Amino acid sequence: MDGRLARGARTRTAVLDAAVALATESGLEGLSLGELAERLGVSKSGLFAHWRSKEELQLAAVERAREQWVERIVLPALHRPRGVRRLWGLHDARLAFYESGTLPGGCFFAAADIEFVTRTGPVRARLVEALHEWLGLIERLATEAVAAGELVGIPSSQIAFEVNAAGTAAVYQARLSDPAASYRYARRAVLDRLRAACPNPTLLPDPEATA
Amino acid sequence: MDGRLARGARTRTAVLDAAVALATESGLEGLSLGELAERLGVSKSGLFAHWRSKEELQLAAVERAREQWVERIVLPALHRPRGVRRLWGLHDARLAFYESGTLPGGCFFAAADIEFVTRTGPVRARLVEALHEWLGLIERLATEAVAAGELVGIPSSQIAFEVNAAGTAAVYQARLSDPAASYRYARRAVLDRLRAACPNPTLLPDPEATA
Repeated sequence: MDGRLARGARTRTAVLDAAVALATESGLEGLSLGELAERLGVSKSGLFAHWRSKEELQLAAVERAREQWVERIVLPALHRPRGVRRLWGLHDARLAFYESGTLPGGCFFAAADIEFVTRTGPVRARLVEALHEWLGLIERLATEAVAAGELVGIPSSQIAFEVNAAGTAAVYQARLSDPAASYRYARRAVLDRLRAACPNPTLLPDPEATA
Repeated sequence: MDGRLARGARTRTAVLDAAVALATESGLEGLSLGELAERLGVSKSGLFAHWRSKEELQLAAVERAREQWVERIVLPALHRPRGVRRLWGLHDARLAFYESGTLPGGCFFAAADIEFVTRTGPVRARLVEALHEWLGLIERLATEAVAAGELVGIPSSQIAFEVNAAGTAAVYQARLSDPAASYRYARRAVLDRLRAACPNPTLLPDPEATA
């Protein structure tokens, strides 16, 4: 019984991973149980047992995308020393996740946020919550850097906006323009900003040395 | 005859303005001659005489969005003195255009770029061209500022990435979060960056004085 539950959970995760990836290509609104079943080579009725509507599937995909974001971006950064290095680590891990090509369309949230910006309902509400959570995390790491005396003169909410802006712009420009240059600009934008506001800039890599 | 041609051109522009606005709500792919006709209270066959396919309509909407961008953002900036003031003026005019609420979904290009990122074809090609044109313009104004001795130590292509990133992030966060704060962050991000790299920062407004 436990084995069956574990197998079921693994299958569920695999289906949702496919849903997250598919949503970055055809949109969260374009996500259908039918297309998902076809891609995975399973029956539509099997999937329908888990998610009774497109909206349920969309909400589950948002949760899975959040888990992936935490595993691949947040947790690695939390292993770095508190302060500007952790803040930088968070941005760097996000860009590395994009560069890994895990999601064909680049970023689940950048695409879904734009897609749901003019909609209403529970999916949009959950996306807004996730965005605030993410901006709140960057802001908290910036505030820790301020408390450690490693960041001076910029409000943490301002840092949160700028770090997020560089990441979002990079992932969308990477698909429409030169990916290597986009990620390089996105790293340098944040490094220049943090180093200029850090009394000990040698805590952070020098973007000109690696450019 | 001339009067009829002029009337025809005005109608065409009005239809395309509605198409650009509608695309920021329902997506460029969601743009249909039927819905457009209904919104404008005209016949679908009348529109069909101008654009024979959805793709033709989409391409015409991209051109109209570009014209609007030039009229509302580029031309006002070109009236400012060459150098950091013109560069700042370009960013400021873009944010002012967003703040004006002309387009219900915020930004035609931010939405269309994300929507077409994983597609192929002439609409995507035109969007990519428009993005490069825009980044090229920012870069050119930055290079003029460098030549005027008003900007030191940052490559112009880096400036172009950052200015564009702040604008794009602002318009999408404005819809999902606090609009006033988003535009304030987007102004300060660019002002801080330009002022720090400008030997005469008093050429530019002090963001902390207006915050």
